[in-house]
Amino acid sequence: MRVFKQTHAPGTSPGTLPERPRPIEPTVVHLVRYGLDGIEEGDLPADVAPPPTRASVTNWLDVQGHNVEQIAELGNQLDIHKLVLEDVVNVGQRPKIEDYDDSIFIVLDHFAMDDDSILAKEQVSIVIQRGSVLSARERQSGLFDPVLQRLRLGKGRIRGGGAGYLAYALMDTVVDHLFPVLDRVGDLLEELEESILEEPTKDDRAMLHHLKRDLLVLRKSVWPLRDMLRNLMLSESSLMGDETRTYLRDVADHAALALDIIETYREMVSSLNDLYLSSISNRMNEVMKVLTIIATIFIPLSFVVGLYGMNFDSQASPWNMPELGWYWGYPAVLLVMLLMVSGLLYYFRRRRWI
Amino acid sequence: MRVFKQTHAPGTSPGTLPERPRPIEPTVVHLVRYGLDGIEEGDLPADVAPPPTRASVTNWLDVQGHNVEQIAELGNQLDIHKLVLEDVVNVGQRPKIEDYDDSIFIVLDHFAMDDDSILAKEQVSIVIQRGSVLSARERQSGLFDPVLQRLRLGKGRIRGGGAGYLAYALMDTVVDHLFPVLDRVGDLLEELEESILEEPTKDDRAMLHHLKRDLLVLRKSVWPLRDMLRNLMLSESSLMGDETRTYLRDVADHAALALDIIETYREMVSSLNDLYLSSISNRMNEVMKVLTIIATIFIPLSFVVGLYGMNFDSQASPWNMPELGWYWGYPAVLLVMLLMVSGLLYYFRRRRWI
Amino acid sequence: MRVFKQTHAPGTSPGTLPERPRPIEPTVVHLVRYGLDGIEEGDLPADVAPPPTRASVTNWLDVQGHNVEQIAELGNQLDIHKLVLEDVVNVGQRPKIEDYDDSIFIVLDHFAMDDDSILAKEQVSIVIQRGSVLSARERQSGLFDPVLQRLRLGKGRIRGGGAGYLAYALMDTVVDHLFPVLDRVGDLLEELEESILEEPTKDDRAMLHHLKRDLLVLRKSVWPLRDMLRNLMLSESSLMGDETRTYLRDVADHAALALDIIETYREMVSSLNDLYLSSISNRMNEVMKVLTIIATIFIPLSFVVGLYGMNFDSQASPWNMPELGWYWGYPAVLLVMLLMVSGLLYYFRRRRWI
Amino acid sequence: MRVFKQTHAPGTSPGTLPERPRPIEPTVVHLVRYGLDGIEEGDLPADVAPPPTRASVTNWLDVQGHNVEQIAELGNQLDIHKLVLEDVVNVGQRPKIEDYDDSIFIVLDHFAMDDDSILAKEQVSIVIQRGSVLSARERQSGLFDPVLQRLRLGKGRIRGGGAGYLAYALMDTVVDHLFPVLDRVGDLLEELEESILEEPTKDDRAMLHHLKRDLLVLRKSVWPLRDMLRNLMLSESSLMGDETRTYLRDVADHAALALDIIETYREMVSSLNDLYLSSISNRMNEVMKVLTIIATIFIPLSFVVGLYGMNFDSQASPWNMPELGWYWGYPAVLLVMLLMVSGLLYYFRRRRWI
Amino acid sequence: MRVFKQTHAPGTSPGTLPERPRPIEPTVVHLVRYGLDGIEEGDLPADVAPPPTRASVTNWLDVQGHNVEQIAELGNQLDIHKLVLEDVVNVGQRPKIEDYDDSIFIVLDHFAMDDDSILAKEQVSIVIQRGSVLSARERQSGLFDPVLQRLRLGKGRIRGGGAGYLAYALMDTVVDHLFPVLDRVGDLLEELEESILEEPTKDDRAMLHHLKRDLLVLRKSVWPLRDMLRNLMLSESSLMGDETRTYLRDVADHAALALDIIETYREMVSSLNDLYLSSISNRMNEVMKVLTIIATIFIPLSFVVGLYGMNFDSQASPWNMPELGWYWGYPAVLLVMLLMVSGLLYYFRRRRWI
Repeated sequence: MRVFKQTHAPGTSPGTLPERPRPIEPTVVHLVRYGLDGIEEGDLPADVAPPPTRASVTNWLDVQGHNVEQIAELGNQLDIHKLVLEDVVNVGQRPKIEDYDDSIFIVLDHFAMDDDSILAKEQVSIVIQRGSVLSARERQSGLFDPVLQRLRLGKGRIRGGGAGYLAYALMDTVVDHLFPVLDRVGDLLEELEESILEEPTKDDRAMLHHLKRDLLVLRKSVWPLRDMLRNLMLSESSLMGDETRTYLRDVADHAALALDIIETYREMVSSLNDLYLSSISNRMNEVMKVLTIIATIFIPLSFVVGLYGMNFDSQASPWNMPELGWYWGYPAVLLVMLLMVSGLLYYFRRRRWI
Repeated sequence: MRVFKQTHAPGTSPGTLPERPRPIEPTVVHLVRYGLDGIEEGDLPADVAPPPTRASVTNWLDVQGHNVEQIAELGNQLDIHKLVLEDVVNVGQRPKIEDYDDSIFIVLDHFAMDDDSILAKEQVSIVIQRGSVLSARERQSGLFDPVLQRLRLGKGRIRGGGAGYLAYALMDTVVDHLFPVLDRVGDLLEELEESILEEPTKDDRAMLHHLKRDLLVLRKSVWPLRDMLRNLMLSESSLMGDETRTYLRDVADHAALALDIIETYREMVSSLNDLYLSSISNRMNEVMKVLTIIATIFIPLSFVVGLYGMNFDSQASPWNMPELGWYWGYPAVLLVMLLMVSGLLYYFRRRRWI
Repeated sequence: MRVFKQTHAPGTSPGTLPERPRPIEPTVVHLVRYGLDGIEEGDLPADVAPPPTRASVTNWLDVQGHNVEQIAELGNQLDIHKLVLEDVVNVGQRPKIEDYDDSIFIVLDHFAMDDDSILAKEQVSIVIQRGSVLSARERQSGLFDPVLQRLRLGKGRIRGGGAGYLAYALMDTVVDHLFPVLDRVGDLLEELEESILEEPTKDDRAMLHHLKRDLLVLRKSVWPLRDMLRNLMLSESSLMGDETRTYLRDVADHAALALDIIETYREMVSSLNDLYLSSISNRMNEVMKVLTIIATIFIPLSFVVGLYGMNFDSQASPWNMPELGWYWGYPAVLLVMLLMVSGLLYYFRRRRWI
Repeated sequence: MRVFKQTHAPGTSPGTLPERPRPIEPTVVHLVRYGLDGIEEGDLPADVAPPPTRASVTNWLDVQGHNVEQIAELGNQLDIHKLVLEDVVNVGQRPKIEDYDDSIFIVLDHFAMDDDSILAKEQVSIVIQRGSVLSARERQSGLFDPVLQRLRLGKGRIRGGGAGYLAYALMDTVVDHLFPVLDRVGDLLEELEESILEEPTKDDRAMLHHLKRDLLVLRKSVWPLRDMLRNLMLSESSLMGDETRTYLRDVADHAALALDIIETYREMVSSLNDLYLSSISNRMNEVMKVLTIIATIFIPLSFVVGLYGMNFDSQASPWNMPELGWYWGYPAVLLVMLLMVSGLLYYFRRRRWI
Repeated sequence: MRVFKQTHAPGTSPGTLPERPRPIEPTVVHLVRYGLDGIEEGDLPADVAPPPTRASVTNWLDVQGHNVEQIAELGNQLDIHKLVLEDVVNVGQRPKIEDYDDSIFIVLDHFAMDDDSILAKEQVSIVIQRGSVLSARERQSGLFDPVLQRLRLGKGRIRGGGAGYLAYALMDTVVDHLFPVLDRVGDLLEELEESILEEPTKDDRAMLHHLKRDLLVLRKSVWPLRDMLRNLMLSESSLMGDETRTYLRDVADHAALALDIIETYREMVSSLNDLYLSSISNRMNEVMKVLTIIATIFIPLSFVVGLYGMNFDSQASPWNMPELGWYWGYPAVLLVMLLMVSGLLYYFRRRRWI
């Protein structure tokens, strides 16, 4: 996963939206209007302004996709600050909270891991205004369907909780999505550990590296997320009700737990890396031992048989290789070599090499 | 030990208890009612509400096991917050304290290490209410038997200390269980050190890795535990009496000591890892030296004997291997080879290889 | 890139400017006078004093180059503190803000990376006075052209924002220049990762080292930059208007994001270093395996053929190498060697070496 | 040195003293009563209560040894809190200060290093009460003899300083004992560095590991010691006079200096570890080079001489090894081999292997 | 450089000066009396008391050398606290500031690096009293000559700045001496980097280790130095005038810059260490490849030529090595060997070993 991608040239005016946005699938704005009395929903066409807010009715505008002009238009209609719109569109921001007088701007990251264990990151922006919540994400997905479902069913506090509670529910959903990812990472770590303890492969090395990088990306996102949630909990903004704060503590707890797990996994990856390196060294030691044992046994033997392969002329002198003519010469050489092998094997055994 | 296991789908309503709980042994609720005057105890059937609290009498409900419905029912009867119940049932929380108006919710981890040095972790939840303590753990065990025994004997402050002191006694018991685990880890570290200093094995490598992981798990639990106990000590809740606070300082001290030992052990494991790696390198060096010495001595000798094994026709020319016909040819070659070996041995000795 | 270069002898009086400055290209002072009504600009000759400030007109003096005397003269004319001038001229300062009564002194670093991925650093000093901004950098460049362009066009808040907003715009431009550099570093990291995962080369090693050093230099600059911007945002100086502070939060956010990316990249480089080392070890393992397999197969075979190359006199004794005279002798030896090879290959296969 | 040893079963009542104490040499309680007017001293028998305190006379009870019952008895007579007594007897506490209303309880560690460089640790407990100091250590030793000597001589402030100053003198003595230990560690580090730079041995590896562990133990003790002394300096207890506080700053400075040296040594040990590892790698490189040079020179030569040792029947065909019958055949082969060796030596020289 | 050397026995009375001081060159006390009106200077004999201070005249006593008795005598005459004198004489203190009612005691370290790149450290103590500054260093040197020169010339603020400004000037001089040392370290790092990237040698390894140690020593001194200077800047002592504080910020900035450079260099050394290790591994890989290529090519060839060096009696059976009698036998064997070599070379080329 690429950590960062530059979006606009240095020196441009603040609040400048990117001119040539990335080509993306069409943007959908789903509008939900609900209160204790009922709920109505539908897609908001690109050129229609959202309906004005009313007491006891909450507007939820769920923007899916990145049509820059449409978002800019919507932002103007809702009277959202230029710098906020810039951050909504220029994805890749750190999770943060910005507390304006009449609105709260929140950025989070939604993570998902597919079947090939590739980590995907999506920026989710939430703008809370009185009686209205705007959520924006990079592409169309079913991310907020459970919240929509709870709104439709009208169970629990959700219909009566106002904009603050809805924002909490959205954030809770995003934070909860961390756990299936961490669960998957945990599985991968267990598989890796088993594989490395048994027999380290080249794939393990690449997998270790990818996990390290993914956990790094997760940590860089969850660390500010936790702080952001705590700040939101302590924020004195009237947009978050007192009851909602209790629930925010719960989601902040979840973020802290996720961070804890991430840190633990990071140390495990580091420990697995040590294990991998020592496994490789161990294997090299074994390979070297085999080579050394074979070479140490056979090189001296080869010398001996080479010795008696020399062609000194035994007729020219009684000192020239008389062994070749002895009666027991050959068996004696065989015996000597057998003793050499036995001695070396004993030596290796004593050093616990075999 | 698996660090984390996901428990429910993202986006569900807060306070949702898991629908399909893990199959576990039956849940037992042990009720103890005591005061300065006496003590009565017994198992509370699943469908019976706990008796109301009375001044000067403390109710202790000790829940062993994880029957979700039974715990939910009990929680309702005791008027415990939905989010608290969720944390009691969804084990794997971080040690923490949550200070509600009329109750304190505490989560700790109980650790044990069996004979195979496998670390086991169990979440212990404690809910303190006026005149009543609810303790919940994952399975039936004798963990709190010493406290029960002290209650039965009625010695010391325990019968007159109220709910706060009982909660302290339970926490103290859980924290004290850290030390036998650390003791065992210390033994394992000593064995490992001895083994690695003498001769590192493949098992040492795996054991090092497991200890590293276990200490990581312990640290991730004891770090928040220490903070939690300090917060509890400083908490202004009227549920903890002033005298109990002095004892809380003692148990917080114990947690700090445990954390200290864990950190020390973690650095020792890291040092042992270095030692292991350098031991392996040392061994490889030794193996390589043996190979090099043997090869360096015998390869040149083999060349010499190979040289005089060539079949040049000495009759075709007086320059063709006349050495083969010399009178002292064979002894001279033997002497030359002896000198070569001596020279190499001297060289190796000087470089301190042998 | 050299991290630090000493500029003057120890013990000299404070505020001493370097006597023999580095030879540099001529210094240009570009003067821009603007207000809501209009803008005029031109180069200020070396011996002419800048015009006095007026209400509703802002003077921007953009000094490009390092002619020490000229800068000293200009500093005197503008009544800038001796210690500030020393820091403007002795480049290599840490990013910092110094809050004087009637002026603010700011130091930042401008980074650029050329096509050969060589990181270049330039100190940018900004002195904010009432109605006047002095910016000084080490050499002539188009760094501030976008700001000049926006001033000329007069769009947005820039003409009416006063000295504080201009200083913000300059700082924003410098900070924004971090991102193309980080983008390039990200590209290099991706290339490196691919190369190392496939086949580590000697160049990768040098590149890793250079990236590590560059990121170190970046971090050492961006870390104090972020703090400096936060301090500036919180500063109570009347030179920065309230509206400008909102924009300062934005640029401080950018600096924090840059720092985040730098930290992430640093950990990635460290992870790539691990990957590199384990890749080398892996390759050495493979090389050793090839050597061991070849040697283990052929060294025993060589012994066997050497054995039957011995010249024992089979006529001197029936025990002297009777095999040589057997009818099936040669085929039998070939068969024995074939069996040896098969056995070894089977052994290697079982150990998963081949 | 074992870092930690468990002392009592989990779940026992707070303040429980260990039932089966470690068998130790007899406990001696040395009583010193002194004031500006004079001094009297003697051993206090086990069954005699210490004399009551008087204004202008300070009682110092110096307990050497660990007779649990005797200490418990003494504690009761002096009205010392149960939890304090537990910490006095259960040695292995972290250095700490506990500030009670009418007494201060201090725990420190006394370190010593014997001639075999084995680090020994002893817990020293000090209880300060009005007009009385109780010091307790694990065994009989001359640790506090210099203080006793100064009391007997009556020089300096010591006789008139009261209980607070005496406690300071005892702590100062214990802290000062850190420095001979650090001095010895410094000597060992210098020896190690020299040995590793010259030629790393297996003993160096073990010594490095032991030093790392000892410095870890020292750090874990001196870190809380420094904080404890600072807290004591800032404590508002009336038991420490204002003048004594100035001296406490001095001893706190010493503890900070010791911690500094320990941290420096720890980094040196880590640096020596790196040096050791790279030394081993260097040596392996050298060994491999020798092997490679020998093998690369002689293996091709052996092939050549083996080639002309083949027995092809030169009579069967003019193509079968006609070289064997050439007039200059043997000298030509010798020349070829000489050229091969020269070429290889040149190649090795160019690669700077020899 | 030895980090620490013990100076006195544990348990001695506070303020005890060392009895047998190290033998050193004679101590010189240089007295400078100056004010706005003039300056007089001269060496103060050992047995003469310094002249009393006067308004508008500042006394500077510059003690060079370590004659303990002379310093003790001087300290008594100047009414300096016993503990301060102890720290002046027992060099090896951490940089620190101690704020007494009527005086300020400052300790710094002066560093120098000679031509052999050996780092030398000298403690500089400064005692500021009303109208008087005492500076003490370990040996005679020209360290403070630039300050003396500025006093003699009387330029700038120095003659009228009083004791506080003089102390600042001395500290500034000592801090400025850090930069030539860091400059030299930077040169050495650049040389090392070049050498390691090209070809790592044994000297590089030792040099890396020494640099790591020197930077450690520097950091351990500059870290408290920076804090000390900040504390001094914030100190409310009337001995430091308000104008002097502005200059103190400058020197504190320099110390912070020095610390920054030191930290950067430390990370560079660590990065060079990684580079060194991977360079060694790379070289070993290359050596192993050469060995493997040679062995893999020639060992099979040697087997083939050995095969046809066997002496099976071709007359005893038509199956006994009939190849030896074939017409094209020898050329065929040569061809087979050529093919083997080609195949292996192709294999190595494909694996990119050659």
